[in-house]
Amino acid sequence: MKKLINSVEAVLHEQLHGLVEAHSELRLHEEPLFVTRSAGPAAGKVAVMSGGGSGHEPMHCGYVGEGMLAGACPGEIFTSPTPDQMYDCGQAIDGGQGVLMLIKNYTGDILNFETAAELLHASGTAVATLVIDDDVAVKDSLFTTGRRGVANTVLIEKLLGAAAARGDSLDECRALGERINNQGHSLGIALGACTVPAAGKPSFALAENEMEFGIGIHGEPGIERRPFGSLDETVDSMFTTLIEHGHYQRSLRHWDRLAGDWQETRQAKQALAKGDRVIALVNNLGATPLSELYGVWHRLAQCCDEFGLTIERKLIGSYCTSLDMQGISITLLKVDDPLLALWDAPVNTPALRWGC
Amino acid sequence: MKKLINSVEAVLHEQLHGLVEAHSELRLHEEPLFVTRSAGPAAGKVAVMSGGGSGHEPMHCGYVGEGMLAGACPGEIFTSPTPDQMYDCGQAIDGGQGVLMLIKNYTGDILNFETAAELLHASGTAVATLVIDDDVAVKDSLFTTGRRGVANTVLIEKLLGAAAARGDSLDECRALGERINNQGHSLGIALGACTVPAAGKPSFALAENEMEFGIGIHGEPGIERRPFGSLDETVDSMFTTLIEHGHYQRSLRHWDRLAGDWQETRQAKQALAKGDRVIALVNNLGATPLSELYGVWHRLAQCCDEFGLTIERKLIGSYCTSLDMQGISITLLKVDDPLLALWDAPVNTPALRWGC
Repeated sequence: MKKLINSVEAVLHEQLHGLVEAHSELRLHEEPLFVTRSAGPAAGKVAVMSGGGSGHEPMHCGYVGEGMLAGACPGEIFTSPTPDQMYDCGQAIDGGQGVLMLIKNYTGDILNFETAAELLHASGTAVATLVIDDDVAVKDSLFTTGRRGVANTVLIEKLLGAAAARGDSLDECRALGERINNQGHSLGIALGACTVPAAGKPSFALAENEMEFGIGIHGEPGIERRPFGSLDETVDSMFTTLIEHGHYQRSLRHWDRLAGDWQETRQAKQALAKGDRVIALVNNLGATPLSELYGVWHRLAQCCDEFGLTIERKLIGSYCTSLDMQGISITLLKVDDPLLALWDAPVNTPALRWGC
Repeated sequence: MKKLINSVEAVLHEQLHGLVEAHSELRLHEEPLFVTRSAGPAAGKVAVMSGGGSGHEPMHCGYVGEGMLAGACPGEIFTSPTPDQMYDCGQAIDGGQGVLMLIKNYTGDILNFETAAELLHASGTAVATLVIDDDVAVKDSLFTTGRRGVANTVLIEKLLGAAAARGDSLDECRALGERINNQGHSLGIALGACTVPAAGKPSFALAENEMEFGIGIHGEPGIERRPFGSLDETVDSMFTTLIEHGHYQRSLRHWDRLAGDWQETRQAKQALAKGDRVIALVNNLGATPLSELYGVWHRLAQCCDEFGLTIERKLIGSYCTSLDMQGISITLLKVDDPLLALWDAPVNTPALRWGC
């Protein structure tokens, strides 16, 4: 394994120090470790926070800034952050309107965020939670009950960050998040594995001409291992799967701040349908050349057009990665005019910036 | 070789179609192949154009747009575009104030751009040329006489695009470009090779723990192959080499539009010195995780601080790549207030965008 690091032990700290040194609008807190805006809490606004294992950069710390996250908690690589990180982060970012925790659906993250939510509530901070589960590749996996949370997280962080910035209440932000989560679908494929520094070797092996269809962002398997044919074949299958696996009913629980307890609701993800308008994200899982993402885009735009989806906005690049994995994911999120207004609102973070 | 492409023959066209479909502010011209702004020539402004082999995306086509390039000519992967591409592009973008051609110093590019410059001149279009040679790793290489043109090209394209947008004349743009080129230095390293689709296998092999120090953007060797120690050791050596190899005297030729002929001038690149202010670019050559770039930034900022350079602006990401090469380059460009004003001027391209 060759990586541009000093040691497995130092990697997270040196990279986070680099991030905040390069972007003085961010502040790194240590012991416990989390990142906030340097400017401090935005008074009178809901504070949107997220977190999760590292290795998915720029997610999440690269999305801290005006119009997006108020704070983010990085765990070790592919390992959930701990409740004390989330608790201290929540306390640091609360501007008096409470904290909305965005949680990707992995068992470890769920457990730790739930503990942090209870602690924050007990300390008098208003808190709400949203579990994100956009990966159509699995129902249950090695690391989750239900679908995994992957790249739609980036779109949700942007949209809810904008809702918070315009002054939506905690309850409004959470309800909006639930709606967005139910309208967004992702699917990933890998042609090659990533290497976790602490492991020192690729996390799986694919034969020449083999592809993992439905890969997770930690290298977890998805739908099946199958031969890689061509770009067009691959994008066509991904698109079809995104549509066909779209509908999905499950229970999700979230913190009810009035009851001071957890509430379970029956939720249904909506499949995309002809006539829908979408934000499309073609996401690099790490080691894929940008030029190939544009090849993917070329075919994806055809698929959307033939099916009857209108692409209203787009992101093409490295937004929710898996270290140096060779592969991509596609996210399609159904939107309407109010969501597009939130999308177009100014954002100023290291990894997403416009209108500022 | 597994790549997200349909065929070696189709790759360039499908990727360029994807680019312009995703970014409607760009227009793709075919037979011959080049990219311009959709809005057409900017009347009364110098048109800055560039071009070169593909495989370095987003360079150059991703930098076409307001405040940067007026047009770009993509060759096949790692192969110079042809004079007819450059000639037609130059004619398409000329807004009446002439065309400035930015040429990375490779023998093939030089020959083809020189032919195109002569053709454009003969057709009555005012033309000027600037050869970029920022790579301190080599004096002469497999593909060049003199230093190679690498990632400082991105900074030069931005700065001269801004100069053109504010109304600088062709002669002023060229003279400014010469100054910027003499103040900028780059150096790259690779931990792993890229794979050119048509070749189907990695372009070189490195042993475990071996690094190519001074790599070119086509995988050409540079200073030496040496053991990879650590991030800090690597960045320290790169920084020292950037400083120590900075001074460089050579002849460069450019088109003299009044004489209607080539003019050779003796030029000296200035080494960076204590007290200088710089724009720093930490550039991903392709397959390096973003997190590692921030580790590089952390150490580079220390090196600059200890030496006495002030980092005024920065770019950290994939700006001048070599397909899926694992590695990075560092560019340091000396700037002053007028250059910073050009840097901060609005730019609106697929790969670089602010203030618009």
